[in-house]
Amino acid sequence: MPKLLILSRDKDEYRHLIESARLPDLEFVADPKESDIVLGEPKLIQDALPLLATLKWVQSIYAGVEPLVAPAQRRDYILTNARSVFGELMSEYVFGYLLFYEKKILERIRTQQAHQWQRPESGVLRRKTIGLLGVGSIGAHLAGTAKYFGMTVRGFTRESESSTQVDQYFHGNDLLKFADGLDYLVCVLPRTNDTNQIVNRTLLNVLPAHAIFINVGRGNAVDESALVKALNEGKLAAAVLDVFEKEPVSENHPFWTTPNLYMTFHTSAISYPEDITKLFIENYHRYIEGKTLKYVVDFERGY
Amino acid sequence: MPKLLILSRDKDEYRHLIESARLPDLEFVADPKESDIVLGEPKLIQDALPLLATLKWVQSIYAGVEPLVAPAQRRDYILTNARSVFGELMSEYVFGYLLFYEKKILERIRTQQAHQWQRPESGVLRRKTIGLLGVGSIGAHLAGTAKYFGMTVRGFTRESESSTQVDQYFHGNDLLKFADGLDYLVCVLPRTNDTNQIVNRTLLNVLPAHAIFINVGRGNAVDESALVKALNEGKLAAAVLDVFEKEPVSENHPFWTTPNLYMTFHTSAISYPEDITKLFIENYHRYIEGKTLKYVVDFERGY
Repeated sequence: MPKLLILSRDKDEYRHLIESARLPDLEFVADPKESDIVLGEPKLIQDALPLLATLKWVQSIYAGVEPLVAPAQRRDYILTNARSVFGELMSEYVFGYLLFYEKKILERIRTQQAHQWQRPESGVLRRKTIGLLGVGSIGAHLAGTAKYFGMTVRGFTRESESSTQVDQYFHGNDLLKFADGLDYLVCVLPRTNDTNQIVNRTLLNVLPAHAIFINVGRGNAVDESALVKALNEGKLAAAVLDVFEKEPVSENHPFWTTPNLYMTFHTSAISYPEDITKLFIENYHRYIEGKTLKYVVDFERGY
Repeated sequence: MPKLLILSRDKDEYRHLIESARLPDLEFVADPKESDIVLGEPKLIQDALPLLATLKWVQSIYAGVEPLVAPAQRRDYILTNARSVFGELMSEYVFGYLLFYEKKILERIRTQQAHQWQRPESGVLRRKTIGLLGVGSIGAHLAGTAKYFGMTVRGFTRESESSTQVDQYFHGNDLLKFADGLDYLVCVLPRTNDTNQIVNRTLLNVLPAHAIFINVGRGNAVDESALVKALNEGKLAAAVLDVFEKEPVSENHPFWTTPNLYMTFHTSAISYPEDITKLFIENYHRYIEGKTLKYVVDFERGY
């Protein structure tokens, strides 16, 4: 009989949702030593790992599973993460900020405050070129939204070219070619050893001065001082950051006051229990039928 | 030989674009008395109407043609307006503001200014219900964008049900049923006698307090004092207005300072000469071939 332990701040909600699905044979347990399945937040699960004597499968409720793929951790179980559920939310965030910028919403609020009837022209998304650093399930959704708005889409990936919504793929040494002349650069990369400071001075230098950079992946992908410098020098029109090298961002970090830098607080896509539960249910059926689970993480690769 | 007069602030750009298309037999003229075709802005054309002795066809570069359909004006020519070119721009505007609101962008800017790492949950578009007052070519595009974002779409029209992206249509006396419980109400109505103050106290009263109202149609559709009252009393979460009963809005109008009211200045969709020229070229070919033109305005109906 499969025994499920839930390790999440939303434990009660997850339990309620999963109970309502009446999954065959599933038993809920509170003791880590008894469970073979764990659903929850990577950090909480990391803390419990030494106690999970009979662990077979972990379903992370987040996409990022850094605490569980760190080199010192055990790897004698199947780790699946949350995918395919964040694309819609990420599209809302990314295109919300792009439109906020192009429609000059802040400028118009200030014009209103000054009681001025003024008509500066808005920018448009259509016919612009967006570059996606990383094209997994989130990147693919962003690509689809960009196409919906009439944009050209470039994708930079390790090797995969799975999304057909990307107009042109780039790999390996073609990073600067990928970035050259982009109107918008969006980073969706996971934290791995290969993604450290991909967005550095050299890359920022090939972006046009009117470009906007958005990071909804992980903070390690950005050379933060190079980004501050680029914004201070007007080499970049704006940056929108939801993730940072260190979170929460320290009080004296230059980001708080860098011009044209918009911070949000790792909130671009949150895990809604109803979404994650659907994904868990699908994987649970596969689990009891002995099938390969969906969204299995490669411990070595880190995602 | 068809003789074209251009009456627009962007006259030179239009002339250049149309010349580049090398349209058969077309001659450009500067004298209103000589022209049979006029392309331009309704207000400028209205002023020239008495001089246009041989007028056959007017192509408006705007969607709204109020100056030309006013009862006192002559109607002895074919009037076509600009349609199908504003949908994309209107979608960018409307969904830009909806996402601006739901993603709490202004709130997060203030949090950043206060150097605070705070994580209030964002709202989402998906699964929300949007109501479109008017479903012509712009409304149909908005409907498609709403469906792309996973929303439910209601449409209120005189009788047409042409867009298949609308989930449910309402007509005539069902206006309040249409509005009941909407998350977002977007007005795309033209200015006609039938659209005066459709958005009045009664309609605003059936919207939930969390609802957002956007007007990208015409200002006459809104009872402006009722809207100010609803916002002041918190009966509506926000309003975004691009059009007004009288434009420019007078300096002492309460709109400038009404809470949660965002004004823009009739800029939600501007006429790009390259878009309008395409539409003119298509209609010109129909004109010289004696075919029915596209986007013919019904003088009586007003659009």
